[in-house]
Amino acid sequence: MSEELNETIDRFSHTPETDKPAVMDEVLEEFGETRLALLLEAMPIDERMLRWHSIPSEEQAAILIEMRGDARNSIIRALSPEQLERLIGQLDAQDLIEIGDSLPQSVVEDALEHMDAEQREYFERSLQYNEEQIGRYVDHNLLMLPAAARVQDADRLLRRPLPPYTDSIYLFDRSGRFQGTVSTSQLFTLPGHIHLSTQIDEDAEPLSGEAELYAAATAVQESGAMALPVVDEQNRLLGRVTLHDAMVLQQSHFENLLMARAGMNEEEDLFAPVLRSSRRRATWLGINLLTAFLASWTIGLFEATLQQVVALAVLMPVVASMGGIAGSQTLTLMIRGLALKQVSRGNLVSLLKKELGIAGVNGLIWALVIAVIASVWFSSPLIGLVIAIAIAVNIVAAAFSGVMVPMVLDHLKIDPALSGSVILTTVTDVVGFFVFLGLGALLLI
Amino acid sequence: MSEELNETIDRFSHTPETDKPAVMDEVLEEFGETRLALLLEAMPIDERMLRWHSIPSEEQAAILIEMRGDARNSIIRALSPEQLERLIGQLDAQDLIEIGDSLPQSVVEDALEHMDAEQREYFERSLQYNEEQIGRYVDHNLLMLPAAARVQDADRLLRRPLPPYTDSIYLFDRSGRFQGTVSTSQLFTLPGHIHLSTQIDEDAEPLSGEAELYAAATAVQESGAMALPVVDEQNRLLGRVTLHDAMVLQQSHFENLLMARAGMNEEEDLFAPVLRSSRRRATWLGINLLTAFLASWTIGLFEATLQQVVALAVLMPVVASMGGIAGSQTLTLMIRGLALKQVSRGNLVSLLKKELGIAGVNGLIWALVIAVIASVWFSSPLIGLVIAIAIAVNIVAAAFSGVMVPMVLDHLKIDPALSGSVILTTVTDVVGFFVFLGLGALLLI
Repeated sequence: MSEELNETIDRFSHTPETDKPAVMDEVLEEFGETRLALLLEAMPIDERMLRWHSIPSEEQAAILIEMRGDARNSIIRALSPEQLERLIGQLDAQDLIEIGDSLPQSVVEDALEHMDAEQREYFERSLQYNEEQIGRYVDHNLLMLPAAARVQDADRLLRRPLPPYTDSIYLFDRSGRFQGTVSTSQLFTLPGHIHLSTQIDEDAEPLSGEAELYAAATAVQESGAMALPVVDEQNRLLGRVTLHDAMVLQQSHFENLLMARAGMNEEEDLFAPVLRSSRRRATWLGINLLTAFLASWTIGLFEATLQQVVALAVLMPVVASMGGIAGSQTLTLMIRGLALKQVSRGNLVSLLKKELGIAGVNGLIWALVIAVIASVWFSSPLIGLVIAIAIAVNIVAAAFSGVMVPMVLDHLKIDPALSGSVILTTVTDVVGFFVFLGLGALLLI
Repeated sequence: MSEELNETIDRFSHTPETDKPAVMDEVLEEFGETRLALLLEAMPIDERMLRWHSIPSEEQAAILIEMRGDARNSIIRALSPEQLERLIGQLDAQDLIEIGDSLPQSVVEDALEHMDAEQREYFERSLQYNEEQIGRYVDHNLLMLPAAARVQDADRLLRRPLPPYTDSIYLFDRSGRFQGTVSTSQLFTLPGHIHLSTQIDEDAEPLSGEAELYAAATAVQESGAMALPVVDEQNRLLGRVTLHDAMVLQQSHFENLLMARAGMNEEEDLFAPVLRSSRRRATWLGINLLTAFLASWTIGLFEATLQQVVALAVLMPVVASMGGIAGSQTLTLMIRGLALKQVSRGNLVSLLKKELGIAGVNGLIWALVIAVIASVWFSSPLIGLVIAIAIAVNIVAAAFSGVMVPMVLDHLKIDPALSGSVILTTVTDVVGFFVFLGLGALLLI
């Protein structure tokens, strides 16, 4: 099997400067643009730009398109206006949509002026859809024929080089409306004079341009086809989504879930400039700081208690941690469930019951374990009792919020993967400290 | 656009019991097995079993295969030996490999006895590979011909119903060795007597059966082909990996990253039985409890200090939280980088420098902000100084461990997504509390 990316990176780090362009060519040759884009992303920005300029200019556009947003922007920012113009001149409408947001308005307009009418129309039609709709990102590279065409017309079309991932021809009527999909594989067996419209695959339903990106990706995967057509509200063919596109969409959907938990997004550059990264991450630290101060404020309510029973201060991390961990387990399950559309109002009550059941069992067990340890450590069964109750209450509160917080956020169209953990931590910290120190104040003084 | 899964779940919850089988049929009809599997996963176990028995038995095997491991096991456990035997009897070798681990040995052996020799051979060849190698999960449903075959032979093959996702024919020589791939789309244009071996696509390299699952998925995506052949060490054709399989492998790779952060895995059942879930999650809570007690122990070293300066106890969550959040940002970036093979020894030093740079900037800024707040809150500039130093040190320590811990774990073949956060939290809690309380003891008493 051929070399994996990390092996290339290691080899690259030992390659003399003068031989690096040759290694880049080799990677491009053997694995294609996606891999070279990943390799560039894995380089510090200085080196990335050095290598970028050694890539043949006719390959650059295709590689730029494959890169994650932030890494791509690091290159766009470093190019001179002339270099940028030359690069953007190579893009088609679909590419331009993809990266248009990172380009100065004037560059986009300039590129549009140099496009032919068809590409300009593609560009404008795509812009009718927003960044979360598949209509914005359709592939225009496909086979289509008028509905009146015959098998022999299709045969002629199929003798030319085919767009990648082609297993069907899309038919349209005189007013440009989508009529249906004909699978190419069955055309072999049919006489040339047969009308294609008699061979339409009734199972192959087109996607709406308004479909959400991941839903579109899932539909392509479930269809069993290599691509699905996408139509607008008037049923006109906008383009298609291939299984390859679906895989890219799926990846960015899941990368986003992963990164959002730490307040970042899927476009985050591994080697973003320090100041840019600092600024972005500072926001997340700031939001979490508010949470932490809320926890501090809760503790502050019990200063007098803490002064008298310092053991409570020592045990605080245990109460907070158990609630936080239990909550994050439920939250993670919910985030995945919401992402896969497996969680909904229809099964919410059952889910809540199940998670509260688990919390009941684990709350009880760990309350007991921790009670014994704390009682022995501080030679005080009362401290054991206090922490036992706090742990049990906190784990149950964590499960309840772990289910409800992401559900409510999702309902409000706020990303639960991004905001869920901050809110959940606030709940488990505040509830945990309040119950623990409050009980301590009541029972231990 | 057709209904999404969560809409089906909602509708399902309002469907009278007697009409539910009809809704299930409709979902299967319109969206296929994957969607029905997702729907079953989204049901509490009792309901899942009720619905399972209303699925026509000839469809059950295909649906079972699509389900996540734990949900699938919930069904297998609930079936009688006769029901299980009937179900397993419908599986082919590839399916049996996929779910074999959840079946009693006797059931597997029984199923093998009823298979024909070819399927049995597939089964045994697959078992030469482990659960992380693509050779175990190859698709045997493909087109192949002897290398001596001609275009007319291929034409005959292509007139029959094709396996899904077919864009090429695989050639093998007399000793069964893989010779190469011929793209089906170019065969139209060629006269029937041409030898297929003259048309081999030299770019289409086969995968090794030993390739790691996600690497294989990436290779299929990068290849531009609909599927890649997989060969064994003697270059014999084992089967193929389609773009559809690649998408499934990619999804489970990323789901695993997501779930591992909370000590779960991608097979976790949304509606696992309470006791089973409790037991699994208890392990993770227990491991994290050790971490929490280590933090408590660190605090315990400074009991005397805390008694005198209770403000320190109040501010402890701020120190722990800032370190934890900063660390989790670096860790998340590293986990993605390692998963995409973008992080390696070759760029480790650059990464470490960059993350320490960010930590320096953010450490300084937040140390200042928090110092001001703490000084005012407790009317003590010294407390401000103490927490400022603790915050800055902890954020830098978090960045350092955020890079190094996952790197070392990966090197030791321990999943950094699973263990990374526990270790990182230990570091940030212990370092944070030690520096904060230690300085407090030195400067405030």
